[in-house]
Amino acid sequence: MSSCGSCSSTSCSSAGGEAPKGKSAKTLMQDELISSTLEKIKYKLFIMSGKGGVGKSSVTVNTAAALAKLGFKVGIMDVDIHGPSVPRLLNITGGGLDSDRGNLLKPRAYSENLSVVSMDSLLKDTDQAVLWRGPMKSSAIRQFISDVNWGELDFLLIDSPPGTGDEHMTVLKTIPDALCVVVTTPQEISLADVRKAINFLQYAKANILGVVENMSGLVCPHCHEEIALFKKGGGHALAEKYGLPFLGEIPLDPATVVAADIGKPVVDLEEDTPAKVAMLKLADSIANAAQNSLEVVSSAHV
Amino acid sequence: MSSCGSCSSTSCSSAGGEAPKGKSAKTLMQDELISSTLEKIKYKLFIMSGKGGVGKSSVTVNTAAALAKLGFKVGIMDVDIHGPSVPRLLNITGGGLDSDRGNLLKPRAYSENLSVVSMDSLLKDTDQAVLWRGPMKSSAIRQFISDVNWGELDFLLIDSPPGTGDEHMTVLKTIPDALCVVVTTPQEISLADVRKAINFLQYAKANILGVVENMSGLVCPHCHEEIALFKKGGGHALAEKYGLPFLGEIPLDPATVVAADIGKPVVDLEEDTPAKVAMLKLADSIANAAQNSLEVVSSAHV
Repeated sequence: MSSCGSCSSTSCSSAGGEAPKGKSAKTLMQDELISSTLEKIKYKLFIMSGKGGVGKSSVTVNTAAALAKLGFKVGIMDVDIHGPSVPRLLNITGGGLDSDRGNLLKPRAYSENLSVVSMDSLLKDTDQAVLWRGPMKSSAIRQFISDVNWGELDFLLIDSPPGTGDEHMTVLKTIPDALCVVVTTPQEISLADVRKAINFLQYAKANILGVVENMSGLVCPHCHEEIALFKKGGGHALAEKYGLPFLGEIPLDPATVVAADIGKPVVDLEEDTPAKVAMLKLADSIANAAQNSLEVVSSAHV
Repeated sequence: MSSCGSCSSTSCSSAGGEAPKGKSAKTLMQDELISSTLEKIKYKLFIMSGKGGVGKSSVTVNTAAALAKLGFKVGIMDVDIHGPSVPRLLNITGGGLDSDRGNLLKPRAYSENLSVVSMDSLLKDTDQAVLWRGPMKSSAIRQFISDVNWGELDFLLIDSPPGTGDEHMTVLKTIPDALCVVVTTPQEISLADVRKAINFLQYAKANILGVVENMSGLVCPHCHEEIALFKKGGGHALAEKYGLPFLGEIPLDPATVVAADIGKPVVDLEEDTPAKVAMLKLADSIANAAQNSLEVVSSAHV
């Protein structure tokens, strides 16, 4: 295999993207807009995982909705350009985004305390596929910050696509104080990809808030016996191995699927299902970890 | 939002990648190598889905292993650069690829009839994250064909990452006669992403072989009652809606997870589990559909 394929380097400066040679006036202005937007947001939580389908979006909307219920001002920025799930999980698909008098876009409101920006709101037909390559996606993500009137927020949750691609590099580069929440499922095949994600975050010198184990165990709703569908405990063991905080575990629960399909987070359903109880506990634990994490940072700077 | 973000076009020529302006001599030579490799492969199956975690890799390795057991010569090309799962599912992780006398790489053998090329084999440390942006990934995928001695194959299965990104565009551009197998799970949130994937394939004028519904229903191994964890039938309904063939459905089954974690496809396990029976049936149905599909194409050309 010729030079590029056999290269064992994990990062590649020749791979294009946003080479920071000489920034244009437009880019510099956008950088300033981004800084001033981010200054007004207390905690930025970057929800990620190496593997797809582990429930990043579900963890994102439930944590966000739970924090909003506690009275925090919360935003969700969905940087999954090809497969944005957040608007569907909150039943706010389609419909575009309005702009305010300063020509900034207004995020889409789910409730008084929770609003969302997603690629979904910018598509005329939500079944349409977005065929953008890397540099276009990076540019869109920067605009999700520079061109949106997020206002004063306690928490901005950033939902990401699977993998460790252009979207993730752009988020970490643009929001260096993001606190990363790594979501995994318990089985080995998922943990393998999550180890890559942690490796990526460590390489990028990102702040890792901790690990969440989703789809952790299933109790048969009929006979109440435990079913080891995706096993249990793998995320906990992973967190220990890497010396990372373990933030919580969410069981498999048919209520999660029902909630997803009607576009309501389980934490906003009436019934106290196993997933709802676990998600509320997780939100609490994430909020505490975020608050402690910044206390540690600021005390270290004193 | 400025020009790029508000653009409603689903494809973008300014997004970089492989602009076919004037091809270099090196690219032209690689094009030739790619053609001669692909000529020796009868059916190319592109396993894809919009969403992650629906079991693309599981469907890929089980279909491949089942076809290999039937006596077909089978290859798997894993183009999930950030999260290659295939080598782990077949317990052939790490270890590099040997090259033959013509300096071509030899795919890694799982059995006499089944061999694999994956990013995983090119990494020194398999927990290492690959931080390549789009153009680098496209280049690696082309080399997976041009620089590999695949030999004469009946089937080449191409496992892909989630989404409709650079990897997918590169595969469809490089292998225009690929037959696409779209994998979904039954719940609405997954179907939404799969509709985007189908929309993408139709836009790219790709050949869609049909739809597979994975994680379709779960029977409690204790009380044998049905559990509607991810629902059932959504993939079938989707196939009907788009007028696409329905290739089969695979139930949720703890045996799949056990098999994945020990690195053996369920079809190669002794026990006749629900997933094994369904996977063998699916492989049969995919082989038939592929054979009929090309018969149709060639009779149309007579």
